[in-house]
Amino acid sequence: MKAVVYVTLKKGISDPQGNAVKEALDSLGYREVNKVRIGKIIELELEDMDKEEAEIKIKEMCEKLLANTVMEKYSFEILEG
Amino acid sequence: MKAVVYVTLKKGISDPQGNAVKEALDSLGYREVNKVRIGKIIELELEDMDKEEAEIKIKEMCEKLLANTVMEKYSFEILEG
Repeated sequence: MKAVVYVTLKKGISDPQGNAVKEALDSLGYREVNKVRIGKIIELELEDMDKEEAEIKIKEMCEKLLANTVMEKYSFEILEG
Repeated sequence: MKAVVYVTLKKGISDPQGNAVKEALDSLGYREVNKVRIGKIIELELEDMDKEEAEIKIKEMCEKLLANTVMEKYSFEILEG
């Protein structure tokens, strides 16, 4: 089974990487971009298990490793098959 | 207006970062994870413009800067408001 985890910075946390990308877009002439925030997509391929169990396991993985829950928030979706 | 760009590695491109995360999950006991692929989420806040124009601009930004189209593929969605 497959799952996708989305990890993004919490509101108010500064994003130097995002700011650097914004500057680069500015220099390319894309001045209509006001703000850029960068996050992670983590695609997981897992052994088949029932959905509830998968949700528990993925939440644990996020809390322990995939997201720094002090600065980041996460969400995930489990894709069938 | 807001848009979200998803940048992920093309199939067959090796992902050392994803492999490292998989090893770490293994060491935490999550052996049901077979594969991990890491990508980027880029959240953009843009001046209001009509949707077609925004699509053209975002595609250009992806092609020129946000994605390395040799190794990465991208998709994006424009969020109202």
